[in-house]
Amino acid sequence: MTKFGVSENTNIEMFSEAAMEAINESNLKPKDIQALFFGNVFGSHEEGQVNMAPFAAADIGIPNIPTTRFEGACASGSVAVRDAFMWVASGYYDIVLAGGTERVLAMDTPAATRAFAMCSNSYYEGPAGITFPGVFALLAHLYSHKYGIPLAKLKEQMAMVAIKNHRNGKLNPKAQFQATIRDLMEARIARATQKGQSVPTWADEMEFLRDIKANPLIADPLQLYDCCPFTDGAAAVVLVSGDKARTLTDKPVLIAGVGQCSVGSLSDQKDFTQMKSRILSAKQAYAQAGIEPQDVDLCELHDCFTIAEIVSMECLGFFEFGHGGRAVERGETEIGGKIAINPSGGLKAKGHPIGATGAAQVYEVVKQLRSECGKRQVDGARIGMTDTLGGDAGTVCNIILKRGW
Amino acid sequence: MTKFGVSENTNIEMFSEAAMEAINESNLKPKDIQALFFGNVFGSHEEGQVNMAPFAAADIGIPNIPTTRFEGACASGSVAVRDAFMWVASGYYDIVLAGGTERVLAMDTPAATRAFAMCSNSYYEGPAGITFPGVFALLAHLYSHKYGIPLAKLKEQMAMVAIKNHRNGKLNPKAQFQATIRDLMEARIARATQKGQSVPTWADEMEFLRDIKANPLIADPLQLYDCCPFTDGAAAVVLVSGDKARTLTDKPVLIAGVGQCSVGSLSDQKDFTQMKSRILSAKQAYAQAGIEPQDVDLCELHDCFTIAEIVSMECLGFFEFGHGGRAVERGETEIGGKIAINPSGGLKAKGHPIGATGAAQVYEVVKQLRSECGKRQVDGARIGMTDTLGGDAGTVCNIILKRGW
Repeated sequence: MTKFGVSENTNIEMFSEAAMEAINESNLKPKDIQALFFGNVFGSHEEGQVNMAPFAAADIGIPNIPTTRFEGACASGSVAVRDAFMWVASGYYDIVLAGGTERVLAMDTPAATRAFAMCSNSYYEGPAGITFPGVFALLAHLYSHKYGIPLAKLKEQMAMVAIKNHRNGKLNPKAQFQATIRDLMEARIARATQKGQSVPTWADEMEFLRDIKANPLIADPLQLYDCCPFTDGAAAVVLVSGDKARTLTDKPVLIAGVGQCSVGSLSDQKDFTQMKSRILSAKQAYAQAGIEPQDVDLCELHDCFTIAEIVSMECLGFFEFGHGGRAVERGETEIGGKIAINPSGGLKAKGHPIGATGAAQVYEVVKQLRSECGKRQVDGARIGMTDTLGGDAGTVCNIILKRGW
Repeated sequence: MTKFGVSENTNIEMFSEAAMEAINESNLKPKDIQALFFGNVFGSHEEGQVNMAPFAAADIGIPNIPTTRFEGACASGSVAVRDAFMWVASGYYDIVLAGGTERVLAMDTPAATRAFAMCSNSYYEGPAGITFPGVFALLAHLYSHKYGIPLAKLKEQMAMVAIKNHRNGKLNPKAQFQATIRDLMEARIARATQKGQSVPTWADEMEFLRDIKANPLIADPLQLYDCCPFTDGAAAVVLVSGDKARTLTDKPVLIAGVGQCSVGSLSDQKDFTQMKSRILSAKQAYAQAGIEPQDVDLCELHDCFTIAEIVSMECLGFFEFGHGGRAVERGETEIGGKIAINPSGGLKAKGHPIGATGAAQVYEVVKQLRSECGKRQVDGARIGMTDTLGGDAGTVCNIILKRGW
């Protein structure tokens, strides 16, 4: 994957960089690739480009292969990987490339916010003017109400999600934000001191995050650091048949199970805290992999907002409904905890280039299962999972990966 | 498929209409569908909607299935059908729905022309200002030059493509233009007479088409009737496993072979009259089906412009390179000729709702192989083929279908 953040490269250039890393690390050449499965959401708004997949293949020197673009909002990259899996698992192809790219920052913030809102139902929800911070703010209120967790308490748990993910992101050289919340707090104090302004005093990160001047309100109760950033980036993975893998690597990582499910519009959902699409998608993946949630050592999941991480952990079955926030408080989701959630830093700190995010989650899980993650390594990780959510849970995709044969 | 043309329905409403026709004719219920493979290109520009597939499934009452959107420019619908084929052929699913929808006329002509141009390479070709009529006008000049066919002669052959496809379209109750070129000529004379204007006199359709006032120049040498229209419409097909098909129908149509290939940008192509992506894609499909081009009884191919039909017929191997125009002159591509090309009316007369086009081609071939096409029936048709081209041949997809077991 590329270093996530602001990029001066085009979508295709970013994708090529990620693709060549994947191909080189697989001990392959571009000409070995038989097909491309490509995720992108807003190319036409970012760069006036649709039909991008053929150009991506041509840019890495393999113009004459089948190339297919997938779009499932923020789950596009995952959907591309899942589809690639089927073409290999079925025996049709032996070696394929899957991934995605997104150049969100080619749009300014209002344009990107409006574009992202196109992932909700444009006829039945668009007219209400709701954008995603609003959707997840409502979710936080609903969650607080449903489980009887006072909002102040929930906000503290959400803040701890941000603190954890930024702490992990600091250990990830490809993360957009390689800084803890404490780092950000101290940088702010330093800036104020340098400018001769009155120096803010915060006892700790939690007080910093509570301060509405340091951490502005976006959509009540979500503040700035509850929200993932807009991000440019690309990620890619090579998928090969089992027989082929034996000739290419001594650190194999297997796709053990996949799941995908939809749910229609936000208004179709009975209970947004228990997302049916995610529950059904995860169930498919667990069944195919022949495992239970408690077998998973780490999960890269869809923390587009801090409340989204808590809800995802519960829908995936890692914690009881209504207990996710407490698990965060207890450190159970840290690297070294019961289950490492978003050791990469997640969407929150690693960044969220939407067409690439799913593939970047697979990238992190593969690196973890190969014990190549340095300071953020989850010791002894054998089973990892990804979870991506597109729109208002309109498209959810899960992939379970296992180390070794 | 919906009646192609101008629609007051949304993309999702059109798709639902087509989907329900497909499901009903398959003797199934929506709840039998296990997954949706959905083609659409410009939803975000037409209706401010991406992530459309989940909403399409919800609209036909099956919100909780996996839904995936495919985009490969004008080949999107074909790519969706080919992918659906693999998920069924692999044994993963037994019953799936595939198709596409496009509401092009929600954009006005300048906006649609600009949007379509996003299917070419935006960085390397977009700045030249070229749009698709320009691309195919250049192709006509290149073809004329390469094969030593005087432009006036080639224009006559192109006109005969339009005449044939409109004649076929008149026999198709779902075509956008159910009128022959002669009908259009006579209507124009009638209008002039009614308004008391001087009545134009044309000896025949060919003279009418040569008249630059009746048939305005779009991009030399292409005139208006060399170009397919902008179209609203949707099409869908149900794909089931062989075992399941035996329980559902006594008129089975089998997918015998599929092909898909890319080629990068227009500028990457050595010879646009012999499109490598199309030649390789067709080769895959023929090999999988175990047939030769001469075995094909009818082909629904990508006549976005009249010259495109001639070039496609040659790339698919139905006629020698440089001989396609002559075949049209000799009537070899008529219903009842050597091979029926575009018995539906093609993109030219049936219409071209880009995300739906590939699925609509499959729809026509299935109807032909079931002998359900009334006056435009290709007698004794046993093998049919589809051909769709996205962008400057950046995405080409072919599907071969066979009647019976």
